[in-house]
Formats: sequence, structure tokens, C-alpha cells
Amino acid sequence: MLATVMHGPGDVRYEQVEDPKILKPTDAIIKLSATCICGSDLWPYRGLQPQKGPAHMGHEYCGVVVEVGADVRTIKPGQFVVGSFCLSDNTCPHCQFGFQSSCVQREFMSGAQAPYARVPLADGTLVATSEMPGAEMVPHMLATSDVLGTGWYAAVAAQVREGGTAVVVGDGAVGLMGVLAASQLGAGRIIAMSRHAERQKLAREFGATDIVEGRGEEGIAAIMEMTNGVGAESVLECVGMEQSMQQAVGVCRPGGTIGYVGVPHGVTFDGQKMFFAQKRMLGGPAPVRRFLPDLMERVLAGRIQPGKVFDLVLPLAQVAEGYKAMDERRAIKTMLRVDT
Amino acid sequence: MLATVMHGPGDVRYEQVEDPKILKPTDAIIKLSATCICGSDLWPYRGLQPQKGPAHMGHEYCGVVVEVGADVRTIKPGQFVVGSFCLSDNTCPHCQFGFQSSCVQREFMSGAQAPYARVPLADGTLVATSEMPGAEMVPHMLATSDVLGTGWYAAVAAQVREGGTAVVVGDGAVGLMGVLAASQLGAGRIIAMSRHAERQKLAREFGATDIVEGRGEEGIAAIMEMTNGVGAESVLECVGMEQSMQQAVGVCRPGGTIGYVGVPHGVTFDGQKMFFAQKRMLGGPAPVRRFLPDLMERVLAGRIQPGKVFDLVLPLAQVAEGYKAMDERRAIKTMLRVDT
Repeated sequence: MLATVMHGPGDVRYEQVEDPKILKPTDAIIKLSATCICGSDLWPYRGLQPQKGPAHMGHEYCGVVVEVGADVRTIKPGQFVVGSFCLSDNTCPHCQFGFQSSCVQREFMSGAQAPYARVPLADGTLVATSEMPGAEMVPHMLATSDVLGTGWYAAVAAQVREGGTAVVVGDGAVGLMGVLAASQLGAGRIIAMSRHAERQKLAREFGATDIVEGRGEEGIAAIMEMTNGVGAESVLECVGMEQSMQQAVGVCRPGGTIGYVGVPHGVTFDGQKMFFAQKRMLGGPAPVRRFLPDLMERVLAGRIQPGKVFDLVLPLAQVAEGYKAMDERRAIKTMLRVDT
Repeated sequence: MLATVMHGPGDVRYEQVEDPKILKPTDAIIKLSATCICGSDLWPYRGLQPQKGPAHMGHEYCGVVVEVGADVRTIKPGQFVVGSFCLSDNTCPHCQFGFQSSCVQREFMSGAQAPYARVPLADGTLVATSEMPGAEMVPHMLATSDVLGTGWYAAVAAQVREGGTAVVVGDGAVGLMGVLAASQLGAGRIIAMSRHAERQKLAREFGATDIVEGRGEEGIAAIMEMTNGVGAESVLECVGMEQSMQQAVGVCRPGGTIGYVGVPHGVTFDGQKMFFAQKRMLGGPAPVRRFLPDLMERVLAGRIQPGKVFDLVLPLAQVAEGYKAMDERRAIKTMLRVDT
């Protein structure tokens, strides 16, 4: 089949690769209904994350099961499924504790920017719908696989509560999904930090009550003023840079919580500063599997439309242009159509 | 009066100072029933924390109110009171949120290793008993002021829950109080890391179910084995050194929580490592005031005897020997008798 391979920074090709096949009896093969490009795919694309040789890209996916290994029990060919970018058995103690992203068998998904993909640990990883969703549901279902699940985890990790105040640092796709999650979890006030008109508009649509354009000290001061000098009890850090993390710490009230889901690049913490700042912190790769059934149900019930985060839709064959548009910030997030 | 002044590292003197007096209308003056030496007093004593000139030492206290300022409303002369080492108004948004140790008016107590002391923000800081406790209660009441309150905060910050597994890193006075707190909060298993027979004994008395003598990688391995490779959901870090923090991170399960109350000295965190370790963390100076009424009630009801942590009792005049004994680890914690 033709699929997406990154040969090096800036070099994404749609080229011939081997068809995926069952390698372990717990694998499934799915035919993708759609796939997309993740903000984290840009780290190697920009040369900011070393990469060994060509890589089959893509870890966000939904589609129809076409084949399962001999040990797969619950997932069946013909089912429409969504899975997380973290593959997990969903039975180990870490999975049972709700941290499937630290599953003892954890693997990271790859090769999903393709018409077909192999999903290891299929029973644990995949969640099937009872019926085949309509085509209009596909973007929203696809979003639950990672970007919404990660924004949701940021909100849960930040302990967003009914009526509380949440600040979302970062107006990328994950940040926007964090706004949606905070809204769904009942936050009374959601302050999105964004200086891009298009993203501000989407943030408001997803539930942001306030927008702060300032960054750094200026942004912190604006939010402190809006919260009468108190700060927010929940802060979602959705970037992963030194400046964004400092913003998160700066706007979080003492005893408040920071959920950080942007993979930190060049971020360090001084223990004593962290101590006296007295903020609760939880980060990490999102245990999307914990939230998937709930998120899929919200999508199917029409309560949320996370797929609106895709502001560029291209045929899979144009995946290279999809990366370019995101790299140049012309697109928030690119969905790739898998044409049959 | 004669009181405790630290002139420099290793140089603690019991010498003539001015009597404390009301400086602000929100102050109270108390006559101390007893006072003690804190592990944190050893930082400047050991020259590990710079100090500007002679300092009036002591921030753990209980006693009888002898005078109050004009604006003090609820605290009255004649009452027996306990207060936190963090002085707070108990009315600001941070106090209302349960983080009195970040009160907008926060000051740190000093000068309590003395027969009399001034307590600023008396109404917010002090908690009075309804009756005068007997002399046998004084060590236990004194312990609630900081060492128990701090151990309690470590357990609460570490989200110790009924039936859960808690690891306590550090067998100093705070660590031992952390064991007591975890036990009172219902932890099913409490693993204390200690290699000192006397402290192990006290840890067991306070509720430790297991003792691990190993440190570093060896200690981590022992605890991972005891928890079937899973780790503990709650870890109380009660030291504040690089090695102890690494131990805490190493024994905490993914999604588990570390409450750290040892003021970090020379500890830094790599953001990306913290991210992938996926542990929830909350530290800081303990908001003891939040817990004080409950802790005092537990003491008065005879449910806990935290004063057992004082394994050396000296008259206040021998305060210098009290510091020396703790510095040389001959004493876990020194109580100072204030003779009338």
C-alpha cells in the first residue's frame, strides 16, 4: 500500500510500504476511516527530536476492523473502532488504576497515516461502537483517539471542577480540546491564552469564556487581574516549552493544580521554587483509553463536535502538504481522508 | 527575658533579649507551655542556609495567652492556644482554599524558643482549646504546631486513602509523623524507610506495617518487590534531598501521588522525565492551620500521641545542647521545657 514515511526533518513522503499484517495473536488490522497529523509529529519534522532512519508516521486513528489475531476475543472484524495512541492491555495494575498510558505492555502506535494499520493489544486498546457511525461522525470519532483524549486528560489532571476557574495555556489543537474538556467538565470560567483570531473563535465555540492575548509576564498579569489576584485553581499546560510552563505556574493559585500534556522540551524545575509555589502537578502521556468510551458516547450523542479542530482536510496522498501547513501554522490540525 | 539566639552556624546561645510586646493590634503575646527544635532549624545551624546576623529561633509553640492587641477579637487572655509556624489571617482567598501557608499576609513565626513570644495575626493563626489541658497533653499539643501538621500535610498531599499503600521516605520527626498521619487516614499498608532501630520502633508504634532499610536503588527495588512491581499510590517525601526525592519518584506508581514536605535543597527536576514518570506531586510549607482543630481534637481525645516523637526533653536554658543532640542525630527531636 501507499503510506506516510518520514525520512528526516521536513521530508515526509507518501510512498510504497509493505501491507500491515498480524504479527502477534493479539493484533488487529484496521482499515482507516480517516487519520490525521499530530502536533507531536512536528517535533521530528522540525528536527527537534532525533530520529533513527525512516519512520512510519501516524498514531491517531479510527476505522473498521478487517482482521484479528488468534487471541483477540472481544474485537471482531466489521466493527468500527477507535483506539488510543498508547497501546495497552487494559488489564494490568496500571491500566486498572486508570493509567493505561503506563501499561506494563505499553507500546506507542505508529503507521496510522495509511489506509491500513496494525493495532497491537487490540482487545485492550480498541473500543468498538455498537453500530457503524455515519461519515459525518468520522472526524469527531477520530479526534477522540488522541487530541481530545489528551485535552481531556489535561483537564482531569488539572482537577477541573464544576463551577471552577480553568486557564488553558496553548491554543494548538490540544489546547482547544482542553477548552472543550474543561467546558464539558463544568468549569464556570475558562480563560484561553491565544493571540490568533481563528483559534480564539474556535476556543469560544468550544466554551472559552475569556481570551487573554498577552504572553509571559504580561499574560500572567492579565490573568491575575481577572481573578482578583488569586489565580486559577486549574491550569492546563498544552505546549511543553519553558515559557508556557512558567505561564502555567504563574497563573495557578497556591494549592491549585496544573495538568501538563505538552511533552516538555528543555523544561527544568528548581525543587525549592516548586516547593514554595505549592502547585499540584500531574503530566504525562494521556491515558486516553480511560476516557474513550465516555468520549465516544458524547460524540455519538451529538453533545460534542471535537472534529471541528480539523481546519484542513486533505486526501492522504497529500500528507506532505498537511505537515507543511501545520508546520507553517497555516492549519491548526490536518485531517487526512482515506479514499476508498 | 532569656531566650534562644543563633549567632551563626553551630552557635546557639540562651541569652538576654527584649521581652516581646504587642507591635500590631492583631498580635497576641503567649507564655509558652513548651517549645522545641525543628529539623529545619538545623539548616542554618549546619551553615547550609545563609543567615543575616543573629536570629531569634523557634517557630513551634503552644501556651497561654497573656495579652492581645486592640483588634484581636476571638483569642482572649487565659486561653490555651496552638498556632502554626505559618502565620495567617485565615480569611483571605488562599486561606479559604485551605492553603493558609500561602496566606496573602503570611509571615513565618520566630522567637518561640523562649518563655514568651509574640504571635502576629492572632485571630487567624491561633486555635484555642475550650479548657486548659493537663500537663501530660502539652508535648502532644506542641507537636501539632508543626511536626505533626507537616507530616499530616504530606499524607494529605500524597492523597493517602483508606486501604491504600503509602511509603514514607525519611525517618526524621516529620517522617515519623507522616507515618502516624497515614495510619490515621486509614492507609492499609505503610512502608517506612529507616535504618535506625529506635526510629523503626517508633515508626511501628505510629502505624508502619513494613520497614525497608535499603536506600537508593536498593531501597526502590525492595519496595517494588513488596508491591508486586507496581509501586505505592501515595509517597510522603520528608527529607528534601536529591536522593530522597529520587527514591520517592522511584517507588511511586504511575498516576500515584508524592507529597513532599522536606524543603528541597539542591533538587532539580527534568521536565521530560517528570512527564513520563507520570506522578502527581504537591509540596510546600504545610498549611497546618487547616488541620489544627482536627489534630488538637484527636490529641485531646487521646486518639494520637504525637509527642512521643520527642525523645529528648531539656530545660529551655539547655537549648544549645538540644541543637547539638539533634545535629549529631543523638535525638530525633528535642522538646524544651519552659520552667515557671
